[in-house]
Amino acid sequence: MQKLMNIINDKKLNRFLTKCNFGIEKENVRVDSSGHLAMTKHPDIFGDKLKNPYITTDFSESQVEIITPSLDTIEETYNFLESLHDIVSLELKDEYLWPQSTPPSLPNEENIPVSTFEETSEGNRAQKYRDYLSLKYGKQKQLLSGIHYNFSFKDEFLNLLYKESKSSDFKLFKDKIYLKISRNFFKYRWLLIYLFGANPSIHGTYSKKCVGLLDKVAPDSFSYPLGNSFRNGMCGYRNKEVFDISYNSRKEYVEDIKKLISQKKLISEKEYYSPIRLKAKDNTNLLKSIEEDGIEYLEVRLLDLNPMIKTGISIDQLYFVHLFLLFCLFTDQDKLTKQETWEGNKNHDLVAHYGRKRDLELFNKGEFKFLKDLGLDIISKMDKVAEELKISNLNYTNTLREAIESFHNTNLLISSKIESGIREEGFINFNLNLAKKYYKESQIDNFSLKGYKDLELSTQILLKDAIKRGIKFEILDRKENFISLTKNGKTEYIVQATKTSLDSYSTVLIMENKLVTKKILEKNKIKVPKGGYYTNSEDAVDDFYKYQGFKTVVKPNSTNFGLGITILPQKFTLKDYQNALNFAFGEDDSILIEEFIEGKEYRIFVLKDKVVGILHRVPANVLGDGKHTIRTLVEEKNKDVLRGTGYKKPLQKIVLGEAEETFLASQNLYFDYIPKKDETIYLRENSNISTGGDSIDFTDDILDEYKQIAVDSAKAADATICGVDMMIKDIKELPNDSNHGIIEINFNPAIHIHCYPYKGKNRKLGEKILDSLGF
Amino acid sequence: MQKLMNIINDKKLNRFLTKCNFGIEKENVRVDSSGHLAMTKHPDIFGDKLKNPYITTDFSESQVEIITPSLDTIEETYNFLESLHDIVSLELKDEYLWPQSTPPSLPNEENIPVSTFEETSEGNRAQKYRDYLSLKYGKQKQLLSGIHYNFSFKDEFLNLLYKESKSSDFKLFKDKIYLKISRNFFKYRWLLIYLFGANPSIHGTYSKKCVGLLDKVAPDSFSYPLGNSFRNGMCGYRNKEVFDISYNSRKEYVEDIKKLISQKKLISEKEYYSPIRLKAKDNTNLLKSIEEDGIEYLEVRLLDLNPMIKTGISIDQLYFVHLFLLFCLFTDQDKLTKQETWEGNKNHDLVAHYGRKRDLELFNKGEFKFLKDLGLDIISKMDKVAEELKISNLNYTNTLREAIESFHNTNLLISSKIESGIREEGFINFNLNLAKKYYKESQIDNFSLKGYKDLELSTQILLKDAIKRGIKFEILDRKENFISLTKNGKTEYIVQATKTSLDSYSTVLIMENKLVTKKILEKNKIKVPKGGYYTNSEDAVDDFYKYQGFKTVVKPNSTNFGLGITILPQKFTLKDYQNALNFAFGEDDSILIEEFIEGKEYRIFVLKDKVVGILHRVPANVLGDGKHTIRTLVEEKNKDVLRGTGYKKPLQKIVLGEAEETFLASQNLYFDYIPKKDETIYLRENSNISTGGDSIDFTDDILDEYKQIAVDSAKAADATICGVDMMIKDIKELPNDSNHGIIEINFNPAIHIHCYPYKGKNRKLGEKILDSLGF
Repeated sequence: MQKLMNIINDKKLNRFLTKCNFGIEKENVRVDSSGHLAMTKHPDIFGDKLKNPYITTDFSESQVEIITPSLDTIEETYNFLESLHDIVSLELKDEYLWPQSTPPSLPNEENIPVSTFEETSEGNRAQKYRDYLSLKYGKQKQLLSGIHYNFSFKDEFLNLLYKESKSSDFKLFKDKIYLKISRNFFKYRWLLIYLFGANPSIHGTYSKKCVGLLDKVAPDSFSYPLGNSFRNGMCGYRNKEVFDISYNSRKEYVEDIKKLISQKKLISEKEYYSPIRLKAKDNTNLLKSIEEDGIEYLEVRLLDLNPMIKTGISIDQLYFVHLFLLFCLFTDQDKLTKQETWEGNKNHDLVAHYGRKRDLELFNKGEFKFLKDLGLDIISKMDKVAEELKISNLNYTNTLREAIESFHNTNLLISSKIESGIREEGFINFNLNLAKKYYKESQIDNFSLKGYKDLELSTQILLKDAIKRGIKFEILDRKENFISLTKNGKTEYIVQATKTSLDSYSTVLIMENKLVTKKILEKNKIKVPKGGYYTNSEDAVDDFYKYQGFKTVVKPNSTNFGLGITILPQKFTLKDYQNALNFAFGEDDSILIEEFIEGKEYRIFVLKDKVVGILHRVPANVLGDGKHTIRTLVEEKNKDVLRGTGYKKPLQKIVLGEAEETFLASQNLYFDYIPKKDETIYLRENSNISTGGDSIDFTDDILDEYKQIAVDSAKAADATICGVDMMIKDIKELPNDSNHGIIEINFNPAIHIHCYPYKGKNRKLGEKILDSLGF
Repeated sequence: MQKLMNIINDKKLNRFLTKCNFGIEKENVRVDSSGHLAMTKHPDIFGDKLKNPYITTDFSESQVEIITPSLDTIEETYNFLESLHDIVSLELKDEYLWPQSTPPSLPNEENIPVSTFEETSEGNRAQKYRDYLSLKYGKQKQLLSGIHYNFSFKDEFLNLLYKESKSSDFKLFKDKIYLKISRNFFKYRWLLIYLFGANPSIHGTYSKKCVGLLDKVAPDSFSYPLGNSFRNGMCGYRNKEVFDISYNSRKEYVEDIKKLISQKKLISEKEYYSPIRLKAKDNTNLLKSIEEDGIEYLEVRLLDLNPMIKTGISIDQLYFVHLFLLFCLFTDQDKLTKQETWEGNKNHDLVAHYGRKRDLELFNKGEFKFLKDLGLDIISKMDKVAEELKISNLNYTNTLREAIESFHNTNLLISSKIESGIREEGFINFNLNLAKKYYKESQIDNFSLKGYKDLELSTQILLKDAIKRGIKFEILDRKENFISLTKNGKTEYIVQATKTSLDSYSTVLIMENKLVTKKILEKNKIKVPKGGYYTNSEDAVDDFYKYQGFKTVVKPNSTNFGLGITILPQKFTLKDYQNALNFAFGEDDSILIEEFIEGKEYRIFVLKDKVVGILHRVPANVLGDGKHTIRTLVEEKNKDVLRGTGYKKPLQKIVLGEAEETFLASQNLYFDYIPKKDETIYLRENSNISTGGDSIDFTDDILDEYKQIAVDSAKAADATICGVDMMIKDIKELPNDSNHGIIEINFNPAIHIHCYPYKGKNRKLGEKILDSLGF
């Protein structure tokens, strides 16, 4: 394999050793708040189990399976896994995700709920297969949950290697790569069970036969005293017998499996519970696809849920497994002898049952060797592989260092930590406390999507809602928040959550152009405040007639401290008007004249001719309690989890800066002033959220007549998604010619402000946009 | 009326005296190249005569009528009139627009073609009315053509005046305004016939009865020796008798007309050939609409075609008539007495027949007064009105000054000029020469639209094509080239001719984003040149694998004189690549690496999945003749009418500037070099049209396979209108992986370059876009 390494180094292909295809599948059983298996249905929000590629159920209705897509890097994959975990966790009502591979408190075998499916041929097939498994293995065993780690190299990379190889067939070349990894995996897999085995224990409700094999360590809690993994052990998730399947060639592999099927030992390839599985392009017809298309990727299946981590596996573990697979590729190995296969299986069991036993010896080429020596040897080889392939960085060196430490001190092993926790708290309590703790962790930043925090909140919300529905997505341009969503063969391109195909280009151009918007609204008899920009007094006088009968503001184009501003009452004379003009032109070369509409500004979100959210923004403020200073009240208010800095949260922290100080001073106030009880102190003139303003939901509080005006405005511009900014004098007074007006229509309204307002309901705009797009 | 003036001045409403509603209708008979009435059909391109609001026929199939929309200013109206004139003129094949109100050489009465209409109820009605007119007046008389000048004040203005008035009813107030103008118009209208009467002459083929009244002034040419207007005279376009219709109130007016209809003297209101006509909101049901809705505007009908001007009327004439109407409003007049009506009619005839007679006297309050004195008196009053209303500017003072001069020297009158022309050249030749001259004038700038030259050429072309089809338009934002098109109740908003509702916002965002476009094209297996931007050598080395197997350019991000550029051949080593990187980084901190696709770049315009134009741009160049210097050849090439400056023409003039000098110097050439015969000298490296480049149409010359790739690219981006920029090595070689590539897709491709290329056909993209929009 030195040759392969040389090609990689010479051709500078090293980046393809870490930029691969990674994917994680994870099962968690749902439990109620007492640690009993949940008897409820899989949440509806995740849709059809067979159609949601991210969130489904495994064997049991109570066994949620989350599946990341295939992603380029471990980091992305880990983030996605965490997001899926959080999304699922937060949709559960009084239930938790059980953090342990071995099941919680179980009902009688017959009461364990098996997944139900819709009455389709696919659904019936899934149902039938579960019936078969229940009968053959029992439902309890099928509840054992774990992590599957999918891995393959980029085809682009394999193609470049293939061109340099002597191979005459690309598929055979690919097979060779993955079969070699698999063979070494079989040989060295005990190492992963040793390091990452995470469930020596089970609950008392588990099968009596298995309970009998273990020691009782706490009430209703049983454990392998020095074992590492119940799930990987003899009572774990495995076939009725050990099958001897060849990994020397695709052909032999397929033939061996076919033989077992013809002997009725397996119902299909997927019943073969191998610690690593060969996967193909078409996994619904796996064996046939492997036979025809070759091996597409590998699935590492022996990883237990790690209860010490919210997501069930740490990112370090992912790095370790990745490097382990590379080690398997770059370690010589032509064929697996019967002896090697036998030794691999034996070592697997030994480690699962007795991994933490002092001076444990494993089989090695017909001899016994200390586990510790064998392990440290593999680790040093892994280190060397990383070094030679030039991917040696902290991600990999850290995880290797941790592994080395746990050979010297078995207390550092996950299995050890779990066992002592269970001894102390009992099986249910220990795991349930972790489950509840992780639920709380998922609540932090629940508006954001892990791994995508650089995107705008609106886009993060849309993506989260898309994931829930099982819509596949791709980030096409991160900076631009440019994504695509795909489901059932339909792809939509979306920018900043609300720039979609639902609006035509000309519609957007209308909204983008204030002048044109105004013309079109006026043509549609929608009230728009009169206004004009003037650079000389004559033009302004020419427009005198325009403002008559309307309360009107005359102001310099740029103004400091309100100088040069006149507010003319509804009735005013030409002389009043000319005085106002002179006053304004005294301060600036250009002036603005605007009809003055009293009241407050509301952002009305219109989607497909319906108002789906109304928001009013209030300048940064605090409410007095008669005891605390403005400074302290601000500090308190800033503790809200919704408030952050740098636009990464729905609201911004209030700053005690120069602008705020000046504004307070203009009211004869200061930071250490103690506001009276129920006195509202404003710290800013402007109501922007970005300067600490509050967003207040008014969706249910405004007269329908105003909503209709907003909808009519959207229709006038032919807009499907838009934010109508309207001044309303009194939301309970019917609209007339002088008590409201449209300020502008926004073609790219943010959705996050309507989902996470300071006060009010989550208006679920992400979901509504997905509905509108037909997803 | 002093009161009205005071309100206007006090309320600063003066702008509404010039910002009114103006509209012009003009008839021109079509003639063949010998001056015979054209016997061909009205051009198909103008569509259904009853549906095109701009271009239709009047009585005769050969009598084109053009109608401007109602526009705010005289200038706009005049420009639109000229545009319509040019559009019609240029669509005629070997025919011309007859510039004279009296007809050209006519066939026998029975052979004069009457307009034909589609077999609809409206069409049949139009046909029947023409049959009635033919029978009653003869077809010849109906061929007399002229100009109708529509005028009204803005309703906004009248409303403001109304509020200040004592009137209790807005409609009555409006009626009062327009009736007053009409009454004074009747009284003083002789002045317009005197000044603007423009056809003292007729051709010998005109009715013998009329010919007999005139003097023969040239072969087949007959004239009133001192007359001003045949059309306004007793043999002209008038009713069988003089009707006495009251203009004192709407009610009286309607009753008088109704009486004539009941007496079968008129078939309907529109048969009343009044010199000024009251018009209503609904002109298809005029009398009823006047009765119910009041008077909406006035139609001045006595203006002859002015053959001295291409458009049949000068802008000065329009200003004069406008001021005359204002004079009619602001000159006291309560009721029109019988005597005044009689005098008005008499003076009308006197001026039409003898206007240029020395010392002609007209009726005035029962006495005779010199025409000259009466005329100069009216003019001085008009001047005073302009002064008092503060609209006195050059537009108005010039036209008044000209009028004054023509009282002192009748040779300056249009009628005088026409008569002497006809005496010299004969009726047919004089008018036909003018017609041909005006045709040539229309050809100048035929790519642009008068009054809209500030818009982009693409938008001007689209508007012209819209006008041809009778699509109404509005300019919503001139700077942005933002227009709306409306026909049959459907409105489309369009920016820069190709930003329309046909494309969705997300499609545009895809095209706007090169990164995303590339990703999507690649996903659709469309060839995009590989490329990357690098700020350090390591990243570039990491991408080494990407460029292998492809001819590749490595260059500094910004380069002067090609320094630091390496073109790597299809096969190159890592060392070659690293050398190229070092070379490029030696010149700049950032470099570009691009797959090098040989060949030329083509702009492929795709519209609704069809290629409708392909253009290739060539850098500014001249072709040698072995005799002239580069300088002279450039001067010659720049004479092309398509070449201009400042983007107002389809091509730009080649400049002999520093850039050109430097580029020639790099070839050891200079401006005074004499290129050999057929030697092409390039003056620029870049092929931009803006720097004098040539555009060459290749629409019919490129393999269909490339067109399909362009269509597929558009489909991938879901684009309806786009410009695909493609590099093609050899347009006759089938596409493969290395002989072509998409550079980018433009969401806003110009159309003018495909309509007026340097070489090749007009691809009529304006019309095709209108087709696509469903107009």
